[in-house]
Amino acid sequence: MDKRQGGSQDEAAIRNVVEFWAAAVRRRDFDGILQNHSSDIVMFDVPPPLQSKGIEAYKKTWDLFFSCNSEPIVFDIANMTITAASEVAFVVATMRCTEPGANGERQALDFRLTIGLCKIDGQWTIKHEHHSVPAED
Amino acid sequence: MDKRQGGSQDEAAIRNVVEFWAAAVRRRDFDGILQNHSSDIVMFDVPPPLQSKGIEAYKKTWDLFFSCNSEPIVFDIANMTITAASEVAFVVATMRCTEPGANGERQALDFRLTIGLCKIDGQWTIKHEHHSVPAED
Repeated sequence: MDKRQGGSQDEAAIRNVVEFWAAAVRRRDFDGILQNHSSDIVMFDVPPPLQSKGIEAYKKTWDLFFSCNSEPIVFDIANMTITAASEVAFVVATMRCTEPGANGERQALDFRLTIGLCKIDGQWTIKHEHHSVPAED
Repeated sequence: MDKRQGGSQDEAAIRNVVEFWAAAVRRRDFDGILQNHSSDIVMFDVPPPLQSKGIEAYKKTWDLFFSCNSEPIVFDIANMTITAASEVAFVVATMRCTEPGANGERQALDFRLTIGLCKIDGQWTIKHEHHSVPAED
């Protein structure tokens, strides 16, 4: 195993950041969602636009997400790999949420998530998120 | 400016890796495309599947890309931000390629790209790529 994917303290701290964030999404907790995010985050989200720059634009992407969801909110980490050095890390994950089906019921939607983080003043901080589904053609 | 986004030697080396890779795509050069990639790369591509694991599966994603493109191949880096520590880095980019239009002509397609890299034996190596377009709904 690559030593950078081992069970380091940094990996554990990053796992906590990501799991805390996903749990905050499930309970519609905006303060929790934003707690470990950089003011200059760049977000590539599933729906348009192409990108959202800065924490205010990032926050609005969650307004849209919640407006399209009903309780209970599904936002689960199916698989997550953390690659971390002392100051920079990235996370590669497959995720599951739900989308409206043809008859209005919720149906499972698998998506991909990549996160870029920096350790700032000792705290792992999310600088970038990239959420997507494969394009349908 | 965050020191990790400064003009370090690592940033310059990573920029060279990404620009070399994009140029190899433009000339359909498989050896060049794969030159700085890890055998265990995880690829999240624009078309399905959800993910492609390993260098052979990664290579096949380029067969598909080239089968849908004609000369000259457009694969341009519009904007790129590199965040690098000594051993791990991520790249956030917006890119441009082309897709077939309604009348068969090529039309511009902007997409998002996130890359995760590790320095292995002194060489920056691509461990992860995430290419996507916003979902249409």
